[in-house]
Amino acid sequence: MTTTTATRAPVTILGTGPMGQALARAFLKAGHATTVWNRTAAKTEALVAEGASAAPTAAEAAAASPLVIVCVLDYDAVQTITESAASALKGRTLVSLTADSPERARAMAAWASGHGIDYLDGSIMTPTVTIGGPDAVLLYSGPEPVYRAHRDTLEALGGTGTYLGADPGRAAAYDVALLGIAWTSVSAIIHAFALARAENIAPGDLAPFAQGILGMLPAFGTEIVRNLETGDFRDDVSNTTSIAAGMEHVIQASEARGIDAASLRGAHAAARRAIDAGHGRESIARVIDFLTLDGTGLSAGAGRTPGHRR
Amino acid sequence: MTTTTATRAPVTILGTGPMGQALARAFLKAGHATTVWNRTAAKTEALVAEGASAAPTAAEAAAASPLVIVCVLDYDAVQTITESAASALKGRTLVSLTADSPERARAMAAWASGHGIDYLDGSIMTPTVTIGGPDAVLLYSGPEPVYRAHRDTLEALGGTGTYLGADPGRAAAYDVALLGIAWTSVSAIIHAFALARAENIAPGDLAPFAQGILGMLPAFGTEIVRNLETGDFRDDVSNTTSIAAGMEHVIQASEARGIDAASLRGAHAAARRAIDAGHGRESIARVIDFLTLDGTGLSAGAGRTPGHRR
Ligand SMILES: NC(=O)c1ccc[n+]([C@@H]2O[C@H](COP(=O)([O-])OP(=O)(O)OC[C@H]3O[C@@H](n4cnc5c(N)ncnc54)[C@H](OP(=O)(O)O)[C@@H]3O)[C@@H](O)[C@H]2O)c1
Ligand SMILES: NC(=O)c1ccc[n+]([C@@H]2O[C@H](COP(=O)([O-])OP(=O)(O)OC[C@H]3O[C@@H](n4cnc5c(N)ncnc54)[C@H](OP(=O)(O)O)[C@@H]3O)[C@@H](O)[C@H]2O)c1
Repeated sequence: MTTTTATRAPVTILGTGPMGQALARAFLKAGHATTVWNRTAAKTEALVAEGASAAPTAAEAAAASPLVIVCVLDYDAVQTITESAASALKGRTLVSLTADSPERARAMAAWASGHGIDYLDGSIMTPTVTIGGPDAVLLYSGPEPVYRAHRDTLEALGGTGTYLGADPGRAAAYDVALLGIAWTSVSAIIHAFALARAENIAPGDLAPFAQGILGMLPAFGTEIVRNLETGDFRDDVSNTTSIAAGMEHVIQASEARGIDAASLRGAHAAARRAIDAGHGRESIARVIDFLTLDGTGLSAGAGRTPGHRR
Repeated sequence: MTTTTATRAPVTILGTGPMGQALARAFLKAGHATTVWNRTAAKTEALVAEGASAAPTAAEAAAASPLVIVCVLDYDAVQTITESAASALKGRTLVSLTADSPERARAMAAWASGHGIDYLDGSIMTPTVTIGGPDAVLLYSGPEPVYRAHRDTLEALGGTGTYLGADPGRAAAYDVALLGIAWTSVSAIIHAFALARAENIAPGDLAPFAQGILGMLPAFGTEIVRNLETGDFRDDVSNTTSIAAGMEHVIQASEARGIDAASLRGAHAAARRAIDAGHGRESIARVIDFLTLDGTGLSAGAGRTPGHRR
């Protein structure tokens, strides 16, 4: 931190939802001149009161800084915004910190390249409260010179920024993998409390045990990684047949109470495919080979179109 | 611990799979005369070498101790075993530490009662390695006098034993709720590594970030419990619409790579029901009200038969 406030590069943030606001605040706090724009202008007011400049259009906001960050709901929104600001973005660096699929990130990189815009694609792996502090985790991918040119500025966002290489889809690939864990698990937590509610178990009574289960997941994760790295799926502690039986109890207990168990039914079907193929005595990690829609028992054709949207 | 080895009550373990073996070892270590039986007799040999007595039938094993624990795959197995040992079990206490649904636990309690057998139903919430040590978590339900009579003996299993009340289905109700979290989340971890593999991301490269996500789940759980306890579902940090968009990216990215996303599709459908009912701006915990198969958009009739098995 040898630079002074005066030498800090100006930054523009397009999109001031909860995350865009957190990003803008981190840059303001680090002394960067920060320009903001949001589709719904009112959401920039608090930031202006804290020292940001609001621009009336995305194009004018983009014109204010060499580094422009877009952080909105998804890439449909990114596309709408960046197309409206394409000529202003020319010759600048655009960093999307919006979550979407690797396909969308790669398409965005191609679009940017065609418009003379330097482009990085990033993913934010931690909640808004972490931004600017030590716990923030951000992933970046795209041309290394572009990353190097802005790394110091991006450090204002705090925590660890990890550069994943030149493929612009790399950060999004990590993002979708990791978000799948987050939102599937969060949904499972909510499902547990629905089941508890059906049995008149108060949330606070189940909570400490739920925390106990969540506290064991990192060790389960470590074991899964060990299985995958060694290719050794032997497990004399808790095999796929035993786990599938557990899943069946949960599905039965849920549906007997009129509670949707679709998510666990999906997981159970995959475990069954592994068992039916003779892997019941092995670690549940073996199911990784039975998640592919390649004729291992899944109905063919479902959702195979790349990048399709419902 | 004022009792001497000589005064420790004898214990019988029916079923010496991974968990039954761990239970038997904990009793042996605590100085209890321990009798074991397993359908596949060879699995008792190691325990006999460590000081257990093996019985040739479940009935003979049950006859050896006032406290008989059954820990097998599921209640179908429990039923087969206990029916073969019904007269030997008469006048003794049977504790099932087998996981299954509350329905099955209550049916088992009724069966035991009809055969003059005192009955407790328990659930083990931690892996085999914890048994006998400080981290074991066990839940018990059934008649309180029966629990009190054997509590000191059961303490040999270590950790915390929590008595949940007279309803014999209570421990199983906690168990299915908590197992749903465990196995859905574990399946989501495996799914993440399948997605990573499709993008040539090595398990070890994704692993630290996956651990980061798992490390955030306890805080997410705390927030969900707060939502449920207060009935306040406002969330200005990460709402259901934003999370559903994230789920959609994961589903798209998975299916574009031929990877099954059935589990997350189930979770996403529930989130969509909450959004369609006008709760998109609220916390994801609000989905709890959209998990019931009561006409809120779910296909009716699926799996409604209590206790049915596929
Ligand atoms: N919140 C978190 O904790 C968190 C954590 C990690 C990553 N992220 C990611 O960060 C990104 C932003 O998330 P967020 O939490 O700020 O909230 P969000 O609800 O995902 O996004 C809200 C922002 O998107 C804008 N937007 C939506 N549709 C638009 C459109 N068609 N055209 C222009 N703007 C549009 C909104 O503008 P209006 O105000 O006009 O509606 C608002 O600025 C998302 O990709 C999210 O996955 C968020
Ligand atoms: N392993 C863990 O970390 C863990 C943690 C918490 C709870 N639990 C629960 O503990 C219970 C036992 O689990 P486990 O890990 O020991 O392995 P398991 O694979 O669930 O059960 C194996 C045991 O069940 C017996 N068995 C299966 N079907 C039978 C039948 N029809 N008749 C008689 N016996 C039958 C097996 O006998 P054979 O040897 O003859 O096949 C073996 O003794 C389960 O309910 C499980 O959910 C386990």
